[in-house]
Amino acid sequence: MNDGLFTANNVWMMICTALVFFMHLGFSFLEIGLTRQKNTINILFKNLFIICAGLLLYYIAGFNLMYPGDFNGVLGFAGFGIEAPANGMTAEYAPSGGYTYWTDFLFQGMFAATAATIVSGAVAERIKIGGFMIFTVIYVGLIYPIVGSWQWGGGFLSTLGNEVNAAGELVKEAGFHDFAGSTLVHSVGGWAALVAVYLLGPRIGKFDENGETFAIPGHNIPIATAGVLILWLGWFGFNGGSVLSADPGGTSLVLVTTSLAAAAGGIAAFIFSFILYKNLDLTMFLNGILGGLVGITAGADLMSPNEAIIIGALAGILVVGAVALIDKIKLDDPVGAIAVHLICGVWGTLAVGFLGTKAGGSQILYQLAGIVIIGIFCSLTTFIILFTLKKTVGIRVSREEELEGLDLHEHGMDAYPDFRLNQH
Amino acid sequence: MNDGLFTANNVWMMICTALVFFMHLGFSFLEIGLTRQKNTINILFKNLFIICAGLLLYYIAGFNLMYPGDFNGVLGFAGFGIEAPANGMTAEYAPSGGYTYWTDFLFQGMFAATAATIVSGAVAERIKIGGFMIFTVIYVGLIYPIVGSWQWGGGFLSTLGNEVNAAGELVKEAGFHDFAGSTLVHSVGGWAALVAVYLLGPRIGKFDENGETFAIPGHNIPIATAGVLILWLGWFGFNGGSVLSADPGGTSLVLVTTSLAAAAGGIAAFIFSFILYKNLDLTMFLNGILGGLVGITAGADLMSPNEAIIIGALAGILVVGAVALIDKIKLDDPVGAIAVHLICGVWGTLAVGFLGTKAGGSQILYQLAGIVIIGIFCSLTTFIILFTLKKTVGIRVSREEELEGLDLHEHGMDAYPDFRLNQH
Amino acid sequence: MNDGLFTANNVWMMICTALVFFMHLGFSFLEIGLTRQKNTINILFKNLFIICAGLLLYYIAGFNLMYPGDFNGVLGFAGFGIEAPANGMTAEYAPSGGYTYWTDFLFQGMFAATAATIVSGAVAERIKIGGFMIFTVIYVGLIYPIVGSWQWGGGFLSTLGNEVNAAGELVKEAGFHDFAGSTLVHSVGGWAALVAVYLLGPRIGKFDENGETFAIPGHNIPIATAGVLILWLGWFGFNGGSVLSADPGGTSLVLVTTSLAAAAGGIAAFIFSFILYKNLDLTMFLNGILGGLVGITAGADLMSPNEAIIIGALAGILVVGAVALIDKIKLDDPVGAIAVHLICGVWGTLAVGFLGTKAGGSQILYQLAGIVIIGIFCSLTTFIILFTLKKTVGIRVSREEELEGLDLHEHGMDAYPDFRLNQH
Repeated sequence: MNDGLFTANNVWMMICTALVFFMHLGFSFLEIGLTRQKNTINILFKNLFIICAGLLLYYIAGFNLMYPGDFNGVLGFAGFGIEAPANGMTAEYAPSGGYTYWTDFLFQGMFAATAATIVSGAVAERIKIGGFMIFTVIYVGLIYPIVGSWQWGGGFLSTLGNEVNAAGELVKEAGFHDFAGSTLVHSVGGWAALVAVYLLGPRIGKFDENGETFAIPGHNIPIATAGVLILWLGWFGFNGGSVLSADPGGTSLVLVTTSLAAAAGGIAAFIFSFILYKNLDLTMFLNGILGGLVGITAGADLMSPNEAIIIGALAGILVVGAVALIDKIKLDDPVGAIAVHLICGVWGTLAVGFLGTKAGGSQILYQLAGIVIIGIFCSLTTFIILFTLKKTVGIRVSREEELEGLDLHEHGMDAYPDFRLNQH
Repeated sequence: MNDGLFTANNVWMMICTALVFFMHLGFSFLEIGLTRQKNTINILFKNLFIICAGLLLYYIAGFNLMYPGDFNGVLGFAGFGIEAPANGMTAEYAPSGGYTYWTDFLFQGMFAATAATIVSGAVAERIKIGGFMIFTVIYVGLIYPIVGSWQWGGGFLSTLGNEVNAAGELVKEAGFHDFAGSTLVHSVGGWAALVAVYLLGPRIGKFDENGETFAIPGHNIPIATAGVLILWLGWFGFNGGSVLSADPGGTSLVLVTTSLAAAAGGIAAFIFSFILYKNLDLTMFLNGILGGLVGITAGADLMSPNEAIIIGALAGILVVGAVALIDKIKLDDPVGAIAVHLICGVWGTLAVGFLGTKAGGSQILYQLAGIVIIGIFCSLTTFIILFTLKKTVGIRVSREEELEGLDLHEHGMDAYPDFRLNQH
Repeated sequence: MNDGLFTANNVWMMICTALVFFMHLGFSFLEIGLTRQKNTINILFKNLFIICAGLLLYYIAGFNLMYPGDFNGVLGFAGFGIEAPANGMTAEYAPSGGYTYWTDFLFQGMFAATAATIVSGAVAERIKIGGFMIFTVIYVGLIYPIVGSWQWGGGFLSTLGNEVNAAGELVKEAGFHDFAGSTLVHSVGGWAALVAVYLLGPRIGKFDENGETFAIPGHNIPIATAGVLILWLGWFGFNGGSVLSADPGGTSLVLVTTSLAAAAGGIAAFIFSFILYKNLDLTMFLNGILGGLVGITAGADLMSPNEAIIIGALAGILVVGAVALIDKIKLDDPVGAIAVHLICGVWGTLAVGFLGTKAGGSQILYQLAGIVIIGIFCSLTTFIILFTLKKTVGIRVSREEELEGLDLHEHGMDAYPDFRLNQH
């Protein structure tokens, strides 16, 4: 491979890395915007912790858990720390000459923190920060990379449908397909969010004894909207970089399917919620865009523009329905993380079986297998971690702290000291 | 062409696409920052609608209206939807091996939505959202790409000065020059803004019966300032990507002329407004930067650094004058969109006739022709669309809704529910 | 060199230029977020002035002062304005075919403004804007590029350790090492901040007669946090671009060391401040991240990931200590600029002598020499400029203006007119 191509590939991957990093500002803005001002510092602190700890943990162990090299397909570990192999800075390192070893580590490291961030939004305004930090360390440092190894590390999910002939030669390569992580990132976060929300219970004032539900409006909608646009921008890198090179046809198709799905998700969500509630609901528009983005992520490389629009539009409709449903079953998810990341993540992963260039009966089975196995593993491990924490250090702040705000109690700071505020 | 060059070109164009997408956050921030908090949700909703609908419309018809291939130079259409040609993913697709078919579509699609966004700011705080959405669909879906086809699609404006010899051979290629859209994007939006502001009338409280003018201050100046810096960043892609490849000399010159014009515009505007009003006016500084950016856009590829500074500085001065003039003739443009995008768009387009490598008598005529023809077409079509809407569904909200804010009436949401606010 | 490589290199450098530009939004957000709302417009105005004036001054003289070509190693000047040499758009222009002349100018121009921005934060809420603008013009237009020429322009610091044999041939190349500007950018700003803060005196209410210190809380912590994340993003370009080409191994190592140092700085700072104050202090987390970034900047190209983590973690601890110390000696630095940029800048520069591939006794001496010489020069020149201004036009606003806010007095504008505010 010539230097120009290798360099151009690596440039693209580094930019995508930067864009995925920037998604953390998007998540932070979305989460604080959709919650109350009194918990703003707390949410920002959690998010900074996730990025910083996430990167360090991925450096210490995550990268080598997720990409252990040759392994049994279920669990492998290539050792602590990272160390570039001899060909690590050359075009020989990656299959398509796509990047160096350092770029590989950093791009994957930026992904790792994302899963915990998804949980952060769902448990906002009531979780104890100490407990959350412990959970994050285990989930980002162990659970996420182990799940990742099953597919992206070449583990058993990626080879589910491989067929070998009598002579032991591989005659068919097939398996679970999750291009950039509808399941491996978004559902991994989404399942944990679901279990965490269940174990934590709703915020005070969200539901009353008569079973009525109250909206707790987010305190800064411009910031939340900015968060979604920053996330969309970040998805250029999240999906675009998952091509793992700058291959012109591959990357540009992925950007088109990603953007069309986002657009379709937003439009479908606002129209559907207008039909249901006679209201031009900006929050639903935002969640619809995110739903479209999460939905297309599993198959962004396989879909035509038309198929991307279908996946996005259905994701947008699903989000609106899921938000209502989650309210109905009395789960309190302040930012809609379960609807966006879990429901649309499952939908997008399944869609790979029905639409796009890999669609077909056996692919549907592989997709279902991936969804179910990862769902069980993530729910179970989250339950074990959080239940243990609940019974030991505790995971929920006191009633007084929740009412007065976590910023005051855990951080001794106000987010907006010069502004006169409504306490609620 | 070797793979490395093609890939590097396409990487650059994809990044520019991402940057132009990000401009929508810039526009959103600028518009909400410069208006009142009670209409924030409404403006954000409009802007999200513009991006999402704009991309989908460009997919459905816009791209093939704007780039119809061989056509009569006035109106052509290559069919609904998009479909990559056989060479669409190769270096043969674009003249200079600059990008793939998918990159081409997405980069142009991101541009398309911009024109409507410009209008959005000018009509803020009083337009009915339903009417605005219908206008957007027609303007982005039809008017913008038709105008675009006249120049960038190879239509009659691009060949105005072509000369053919007796044998029918092309001996001179010349015509209207608009590098990245001082006219094709900014004035197209600006003319529509002008007509819309005229038809809508001013906001309640902007002018009184005695002819006095009142400033209605924007509610969040940090956000507005961030908007301008994000737009400047986006212009790296807007102008840089309009080179249509990553040609090192071409792209880097364009970035230099663009940034110097922005800097000169800002400095000139604040000094000029200080001389006039004895006041260090941040809003004028912001509008001066934007004016410089809009002004350099038509000829960013033709100017020396010195010429870029002249164009930018004059744009900055023009903005200050135009804002005062527009107030004087009792037009109410809350964010200064007409001054920035129309006046500086016209100035920048004309400047190509006077400065830079194409300057000359006949070029002045081509530039004038482009400005006038597009001005008439855009004004007329906007008038027809909005006048029809005015007489049917209505374009202006009720007095009560305007006073109480569009957020409450159209969306049932507050932008800042935790903050104590002044209603005005 | 083939076109593909040259183009890919230049694409990377242009993106890094854009990212460094975007740091100005990061600085703006950080500075306004950590100060009071009544001075917000003033800070934004100063920051816009710095970017715009900085670029124009670098165009007029700075670039040719900093890169004068062959010169005496102390002071050289290649003339006013910029003009591309004959090979300026070819791969021959830069040593490693890294960029064109225009890219070179713009990348360096974006750096130039940064030094003054650092000062801006330290002197916020009490400096006269007129005086600050004069200081900025001199400091960015003259002092910064002269210091830059000593190292990056090939001046005497870069050749401190060169050895020549009897025949006059260069047998050893060695000297001060400052990869991307821990000293040349951050300390250059930091020394000026220190002197300025000393000459200006503290804000009213920061210290009382009994020697007690009062915290003056920043008014918008989400915006400040966004500022830090934007700065981290910008550092991808600041350090990544300082490789001066897109060399895959070089750039990707730098991104890894940069991000790991930032993460380690943040974690170390919050843990250390938790130990000291029993408080999860978000501001310390933010400053720790910035300290890690500033610290790694001098040797980002020389360190292993482990060494980067050590440098970042120590920088995070240093920041916490330095903030306390600066308070103790009654210096009032509202945003912690001295702790972050000066203290961590010095630390990072020194660290090059102790860690990484250049570590060693003589390197320690070169690093010390660079730190001391630049520290003396910057402190002295800042003192002369500001002392002169103090005795003539004045550098501090009146007591009344400081109490009522600079926005009202200097700009006649409110940052947040729709919000009810606490005056303090």
